[in-house]
Amino acid sequence: MPIKTSTLAHWASTLEYQHIPDPVLQRTKDLFLDWLGCTIAGRHHPAVAAIAKFAQQMGPGMGRSELVDEELGGTSAAFAALVNGASSHVVEQDDLHNRSIMHPATVIFPAALAVAQDRGLNGEEFITTCVVGYEVGCRVGEFLGKSHYERFHSTATGGVIGVAATTARLLHLDATGILSAMGTAGTQAAGLWQFLLDATHSKQVHTGKACFDGVFAAYAAQAGLLGPQDILEGQRGMGIALVPGETKPSAIDADLGVDWAVLGSSFKWHASCRHTHPSVDALIKLMEKNGVQFEDIESVITRTYSAAFGVLGLSGRGETVHQSKFNMGFVLAVTAKRGQAMITDFTEEALHDVSLREFQDRVRMELDEEIDARFPEKWQGAVIVTTKSGEKYEEFVEYLKGDPQNPLSRSEIETKTRSLAQYGGVKDMDRVEKLIQRARRIEKESDLNGFTLS
Amino acid sequence: MPIKTSTLAHWASTLEYQHIPDPVLQRTKDLFLDWLGCTIAGRHHPAVAAIAKFAQQMGPGMGRSELVDEELGGTSAAFAALVNGASSHVVEQDDLHNRSIMHPATVIFPAALAVAQDRGLNGEEFITTCVVGYEVGCRVGEFLGKSHYERFHSTATGGVIGVAATTARLLHLDATGILSAMGTAGTQAAGLWQFLLDATHSKQVHTGKACFDGVFAAYAAQAGLLGPQDILEGQRGMGIALVPGETKPSAIDADLGVDWAVLGSSFKWHASCRHTHPSVDALIKLMEKNGVQFEDIESVITRTYSAAFGVLGLSGRGETVHQSKFNMGFVLAVTAKRGQAMITDFTEEALHDVSLREFQDRVRMELDEEIDARFPEKWQGAVIVTTKSGEKYEEFVEYLKGDPQNPLSRSEIETKTRSLAQYGGVKDMDRVEKLIQRARRIEKESDLNGFTLS
Repeated sequence: MPIKTSTLAHWASTLEYQHIPDPVLQRTKDLFLDWLGCTIAGRHHPAVAAIAKFAQQMGPGMGRSELVDEELGGTSAAFAALVNGASSHVVEQDDLHNRSIMHPATVIFPAALAVAQDRGLNGEEFITTCVVGYEVGCRVGEFLGKSHYERFHSTATGGVIGVAATTARLLHLDATGILSAMGTAGTQAAGLWQFLLDATHSKQVHTGKACFDGVFAAYAAQAGLLGPQDILEGQRGMGIALVPGETKPSAIDADLGVDWAVLGSSFKWHASCRHTHPSVDALIKLMEKNGVQFEDIESVITRTYSAAFGVLGLSGRGETVHQSKFNMGFVLAVTAKRGQAMITDFTEEALHDVSLREFQDRVRMELDEEIDARFPEKWQGAVIVTTKSGEKYEEFVEYLKGDPQNPLSRSEIETKTRSLAQYGGVKDMDRVEKLIQRARRIEKESDLNGFTLS
Repeated sequence: MPIKTSTLAHWASTLEYQHIPDPVLQRTKDLFLDWLGCTIAGRHHPAVAAIAKFAQQMGPGMGRSELVDEELGGTSAAFAALVNGASSHVVEQDDLHNRSIMHPATVIFPAALAVAQDRGLNGEEFITTCVVGYEVGCRVGEFLGKSHYERFHSTATGGVIGVAATTARLLHLDATGILSAMGTAGTQAAGLWQFLLDATHSKQVHTGKACFDGVFAAYAAQAGLLGPQDILEGQRGMGIALVPGETKPSAIDADLGVDWAVLGSSFKWHASCRHTHPSVDALIKLMEKNGVQFEDIESVITRTYSAAFGVLGLSGRGETVHQSKFNMGFVLAVTAKRGQAMITDFTEEALHDVSLREFQDRVRMELDEEIDARFPEKWQGAVIVTTKSGEKYEEFVEYLKGDPQNPLSRSEIETKTRSLAQYGGVKDMDRVEKLIQRARRIEKESDLNGFTLS
């Protein structure tokens, strides 16, 4: 039987809270808290401020859906999703679904939260529809595949369909309505990597707009707007128009309800582009194991998969804090010097640190065919370090810190959340603790208001 | 010198009202009135109603920007542009820029009107920025070219950049700001033809959202959001990602300020897809010249360019009124039977007219290499009719009714407007006359409120 978008829509219409296995439930809550920290951390970025200004100019002055930045107040669901979605993708700490090369949290949670608040829904429904959104969005991303990812920001193009499915479920649409919403979402799918080349703000536009556009698709479907039914596989659908290479049709329905996207998503521990993480982990391991110091290192060769060259190769030397997180040499310099690559390590001062800049030039990326063949099922990496005294060390990592096989513990996620909240300028840390508590038992919450901070 | 998006942005920042040649000014006003009629005619379509409902749910309850459907009231600029943009592309009577295969009116005018109203700007500024939007949007569409058009609805993908430039000029941004807006618009560019296959509503989504997204890009740029600078020609820009074949770089800046997009745009006289018009004109000419009647015709061969096969080939037999306007056989059947293919000829009754359905099956499309080589510079066509008595006639048309070389007269446009207003259910035709008068001297208007009808 040929794959059909409708299979996914039908599945999305049938998932109930009681069908969700406990590990999936627990992981979804962890991912939500992880997302919340990212959103707080990003809220003062100029791109977010500009998008929030637009929301203020074009949206209603008030509303039931809240911006995570409390000072910005409430608005309608589409605008809250837009601004929170932009905010959560700023600090490069949000989750990553390995097989689809997508960041699902930054699109699914802001949309689901805004719509659940708008409709006064409870935590059980919220969690259920987030699981739906992860599944739909990540499967679409995996269907679009690696060649699509080379040209498009899959988080946006797959994400907008996940958002549409999530929102449509929150609006209680049936399978036909969900399918219509997914079709209208897919015909809006967009997001180009061009911004990497000049360090501009499209990354936030892509996630914010994926939220807005997916919410639009679902509310409009509820109001009678018909979307195309075969948006993935159709003759003029996404597969034909947006995928220069091959699609992966089996991703649409293989093991639906058995193999959960939520459990295939990784937490980010380091604050840099996820494509640098295999090398960062390998370098940390290598330096610890062999007692190698920053000053000892003459050169680093990092062996990686080809998709890393595509994204990292476009960001130049890293002239801005954000861009510097996409430069392999700079990220490994920071890692070597500070023993970590956390959010507090990427600063304006670091950009002007001559020792980092010199180290950066001594890092070289090499394609590793074996590692490449396993990507994106596995995000692996190896580094080869030559010291100034002529010694040579090599290290490989199979599973990264934060990978599905090696997830962050609840306590690590809470630590990360506190650190992100501090980075985001939160003064009253008691309120952060309260949100951490609420997130831990969000399925018991009768309403979802108040996930905001000043 | 390589082509640059910035050349276009710079030009867009410098055009002043007094630079606009009188024929360009007059044609822009004609196109505006033509757009207004289309918008009124489309306002009650279910897709427009659904999008208007979303605007009501997510936007402010009131605002300075007006929906052309007076009963829906005022809102913010982005939502007024969204709804009016959707409405003006319903009845397939809006203009077409030949070389870019784009419909510029349906994106440029709704956005410009909404923003001008929001900002309280006058008619002179409105006209100037509409000329800017036509130029930028159509040149981008022409740059993206024929292979892009086979997969994407260029009206949306080129249009969103035209909208961004128009809006940015209305917000008084400089060349840098306009370039940022164009970049943010381009990274949102989307719109697939999949909806043609199942007669769903994406066509209205594409034009409405091109308006919304372009307005977003410009307001956000004003608030400090940085867009990529080389969105057309960059390594990960639109040319690479959205064009499977060749781009046409010369379209970006050839004869800027000399060869005007406004003067390269055609009015639509017939109410069917523009790709049927060469055949419709040729058939009308053939039947008149040779005294051939509907009942006499045994078969029709229509010789056309390849792009027509792409779009028309996707719409099936024409099961809905909208889809029937995309079926060559059905459109020529209507033309032959009624001597015209006006908005009042495409009805539910017509869909069930057995004589039309029988005729439809006797029409065959053939690729004509010579006609194809001249497309889209020229939209030409030929028909060969064989009568039941065995006679054979052939007719060719070089320029269609409504083509830049053969535009509608002011009086024909006014007649068309009245007919579209009646189709759109306007009772008080005196108000239509007043709007026709205002549109005729719109450059003298001190404000642009009141282009609405009940």
